[in-house]
Amino acid sequence: MNVAFLGLGAIGRPMARRVADAGFSLAVWNRTEARAREFAAATSARVATSPADAARGADIVITCLPNSPDVVALLDGDTGLLAGLRAGATLVDCTSGQPATSRQIADRLRDRGIDFVDAPVSGGVSGAETGALTVMVGGDDTVLERVRPVLAAFGQKIVHCGSVGTGDALKAVNNALLAVHIWSTAEGLALLLKEGVSPAVALDVINASSGRSNASMNLFPERVLTRAFPRTFRLALLDKDVGIAAGVASAQRVPSPILQLTAALWQLAHNSLGEAADHVEAVKVIEQWASLEIA
Amino acid sequence: MNVAFLGLGAIGRPMARRVADAGFSLAVWNRTEARAREFAAATSARVATSPADAARGADIVITCLPNSPDVVALLDGDTGLLAGLRAGATLVDCTSGQPATSRQIADRLRDRGIDFVDAPVSGGVSGAETGALTVMVGGDDTVLERVRPVLAAFGQKIVHCGSVGTGDALKAVNNALLAVHIWSTAEGLALLLKEGVSPAVALDVINASSGRSNASMNLFPERVLTRAFPRTFRLALLDKDVGIAAGVASAQRVPSPILQLTAALWQLAHNSLGEAADHVEAVKVIEQWASLEIA
Amino acid sequence: MNVAFLGLGAIGRPMARRVADAGFSLAVWNRTEARAREFAAATSARVATSPADAARGADIVITCLPNSPDVVALLDGDTGLLAGLRAGATLVDCTSGQPATSRQIADRLRDRGIDFVDAPVSGGVSGAETGALTVMVGGDDTVLERVRPVLAAFGQKIVHCGSVGTGDALKAVNNALLAVHIWSTAEGLALLLKEGVSPAVALDVINASSGRSNASMNLFPERVLTRAFPRTFRLALLDKDVGIAAGVASAQRVPSPILQLTAALWQLAHNSLGEAADHVEAVKVIEQWASLEIA
Amino acid sequence: MNVAFLGLGAIGRPMARRVADAGFSLAVWNRTEARAREFAAATSARVATSPADAARGADIVITCLPNSPDVVALLDGDTGLLAGLRAGATLVDCTSGQPATSRQIADRLRDRGIDFVDAPVSGGVSGAETGALTVMVGGDDTVLERVRPVLAAFGQKIVHCGSVGTGDALKAVNNALLAVHIWSTAEGLALLLKEGVSPAVALDVINASSGRSNASMNLFPERVLTRAFPRTFRLALLDKDVGIAAGVASAQRVPSPILQLTAALWQLAHNSLGEAADHVEAVKVIEQWASLEIA
Repeated sequence: MNVAFLGLGAIGRPMARRVADAGFSLAVWNRTEARAREFAAATSARVATSPADAARGADIVITCLPNSPDVVALLDGDTGLLAGLRAGATLVDCTSGQPATSRQIADRLRDRGIDFVDAPVSGGVSGAETGALTVMVGGDDTVLERVRPVLAAFGQKIVHCGSVGTGDALKAVNNALLAVHIWSTAEGLALLLKEGVSPAVALDVINASSGRSNASMNLFPERVLTRAFPRTFRLALLDKDVGIAAGVASAQRVPSPILQLTAALWQLAHNSLGEAADHVEAVKVIEQWASLEIA
Repeated sequence: MNVAFLGLGAIGRPMARRVADAGFSLAVWNRTEARAREFAAATSARVATSPADAARGADIVITCLPNSPDVVALLDGDTGLLAGLRAGATLVDCTSGQPATSRQIADRLRDRGIDFVDAPVSGGVSGAETGALTVMVGGDDTVLERVRPVLAAFGQKIVHCGSVGTGDALKAVNNALLAVHIWSTAEGLALLLKEGVSPAVALDVINASSGRSNASMNLFPERVLTRAFPRTFRLALLDKDVGIAAGVASAQRVPSPILQLTAALWQLAHNSLGEAADHVEAVKVIEQWASLEIA
Repeated sequence: MNVAFLGLGAIGRPMARRVADAGFSLAVWNRTEARAREFAAATSARVATSPADAARGADIVITCLPNSPDVVALLDGDTGLLAGLRAGATLVDCTSGQPATSRQIADRLRDRGIDFVDAPVSGGVSGAETGALTVMVGGDDTVLERVRPVLAAFGQKIVHCGSVGTGDALKAVNNALLAVHIWSTAEGLALLLKEGVSPAVALDVINASSGRSNASMNLFPERVLTRAFPRTFRLALLDKDVGIAAGVASAQRVPSPILQLTAALWQLAHNSLGEAADHVEAVKVIEQWASLEIA
Repeated sequence: MNVAFLGLGAIGRPMARRVADAGFSLAVWNRTEARAREFAAATSARVATSPADAARGADIVITCLPNSPDVVALLDGDTGLLAGLRAGATLVDCTSGQPATSRQIADRLRDRGIDFVDAPVSGGVSGAETGALTVMVGGDDTVLERVRPVLAAFGQKIVHCGSVGTGDALKAVNNALLAVHIWSTAEGLALLLKEGVSPAVALDVINASSGRSNASMNLFPERVLTRAFPRTFRLALLDKDVGIAAGVASAQRVPSPILQLTAALWQLAHNSLGEAADHVEAVKVIEQWASLEIA
């Protein structure tokens, strides 16, 4: 099976690497071509000169970009994906995207006999490197079965969520919950610090009790208490995900006061801390409001 | 060491049972006397006729009541705790209480040479039965060391949080985070259901991903998807705890939009669902708002 | 000048009446044709058989519908507006619409040489009847000047807000503020009632003080205290407007915690109270939460 | 009638001046004695050396301080109010205070045969200077009738709200609504600016429409658009008032998501902008979040 992979970012690169290592014939494309060349040098992959060139001859094209509009932007024009994709091919979009945009893309591709699934992933860079990602697939199950061997190169848990867009929706909700947990845990630790409870003691207790979450068990001990704040997942991207979840809630008329407020808070954190900040750095907003450091 | 235990509710009874089984000389008191008699019949405990009677001769008096005002209400009068407590004794309040009220109680007791620690617990009825509770202790560490042997009868993890009131504060924050997680997870699962993602699939993915929490891993699969909603911890009490956490945040001037909003939401859930509802039933409010069932 | 008016609802009808009375040659269309016939019987207006028929020969076509998608739905097909509108005509959309949709409509019309302005109104039915409406116009000022004589038939204050979509945006924000004021005033009066302050006394003071708003000065005395709740403006439509404002805030990355939370609250009020409820009835949600009546 | 006036701040001074001008025999006390001396030099008032000295011989003692705890702090000790107040006297507290604290003060005074009313005012410095204040009185109506002649010296509208504490509660709610209006109007104007609508145009329309409030009609045109931000009422004090209203809502179990969120937002504005900032400067927080200026 011929595979094309577009988007060799922090998570895309190790995913593509596992596809190559699994023995698929692979073409890669990246906006900054140097990254594609670097990737090809370490594998047998072909460097494509354009999205169209990558798609030409491919059975499966995988996109892994920051957001759905970036995928849409690759579709058209002489060098766009649609110029290269042939009927019978499948576009697998691993972007953490917008359900409505994914459905629009799927509609356009269907007219040309091209299948589409949205297939965002969770598990981070380390999960990508070890092939331990969770892949949330939205689309027809027959299409999923056809692309499953490629997804299995990087995904350990491959879940069929429903029709096109449901993978995006589930990814957005998972990340929105992460955002809620980070923010609320920071509020709680900040007030406890003011009462005289050290964050380390507080986390020790919470993580043995009913208030624990992935955020309290992993992110706060490893990244906040240590003040390390490694930049593994940009706050800007988590802001985007919370916004997607809040937007779907609004469109679906599910009254969601916590999600809507959280979306506003992450927007201000993003605006305040900038494009480069890691998602866990959002706690610095609360620290600044309360004039303290959770450490 | 002579111990008195006041408050044989859902969690107090198994705690008292473990104190008795550990060999301490035990007097018990309960507002509804029948529960105390029933308890005594199964142990060697003495049934006290009043709080004062329970406290008389006790080295350590343990209270385990719904809220701090209930503890205050036991202090005064001819039959109140203060009429029985002797200088040198210690009051251990396992109520999930209010930090400020605990500090007021401690101040009053100090004048009489009586020590006080707040020592709320987490771990639920099953944790109480197996002696696996986490105990959050606020007060002097010398006092904690003196009462530790009794706490060890029901507590596996005994944590010194800081001065009087810090145990209450930490318990309130832990429970407030639980409340945030239940509510936000329900919002997320509701919007996913509207998009066509089944709650079981959504939880399967979230619980393998970064959005997981104790609520998503245990409460939703066992109690919401099954529609079992066992009544193990009253919504009214969790509402109280969120309110304590939000009140401390406000008093400490830690701007906490998520906690404050969550406190308002749990108040309306409590007002809407009544006194008997279990805390997990709060999801029914969102289900009603969105005309769906998370199942 | 030949004018067509589509949408003879509660506010559209008196607006169209004033256009007729001002001497313009008028064709009217309404989904429920009986309303159009009734209107024509009282004026010299022609009843059009379809949107296309109404637009044929018109210099200015005015639409006044519940929401932007309703306008879009009238455009296409053999009997749609586009089949009747000629180059050089202008579509004036008085719907309280969505800025983005208005821009999409304007783009489509521009390709055919047809101008577009969004021109939502405020002032209610009585303002429409007396020609005292405020008209918020988004679009080119040369287009506004061309249509101003018709707008002047029902509008006393005609304001050029900016390019296409700005009239919609301003209308949405005005209404979102109304929604914030209704909700927050109800919260305040409810807590005062619990403290023993009668709503009438509270409003008397607030309306002489800094906390007053149009809601507190007019809606609460006339509609809430009296329990009259006349149905003049549907809650469903105000919910839609708050949602538009919140959506624009989100898209423009203006962190807006109050607007976002308010949008969630109005969604739940709309879901709870149904399609027929008047906007002021939203206070009943708070009354139910607090088990009281603001009267 | 002998009157004592304690607290010659921005609003207290013109109030006291009108009491003096109305012909009452007046003693004044101020923490910074120079202000009292300055006041006395321009009137016939006596400068008291302490709260006790001011209260001695007074029929009516008026306090006008930043917050209820400041009033409590004046009560005790050799030089405190209680050392000077005689049975039959009345304490009129014009502080914008806390209902619960006022009730505690009233209870203490009642034991000594001293009456108490809370009587916070609205109308600002100019209202105080012209005797046009609104006075919100909590307490027995017979007590109100007794002190009314003095209140009439500075108050045009004197309203009996209910029992002790209700004046405080109503003042807090009025100011909380002001805080909601300032914040939400700023959110709305910010998003409109991003859409291309000038704040002046937006306010012109809103102030002719249903979204208008005292904030939009007066504060924004005079203080925000002009960037004047005169310091007439400290943000710190409005933060305190919103907190009082939110605290009462919480204690009375009136679920109030908007008030609770607004309280958190004003806390962060206060923490961010400091003690000297005027209340209208809160809009700068939103301006900073959105990188714009509402002008």
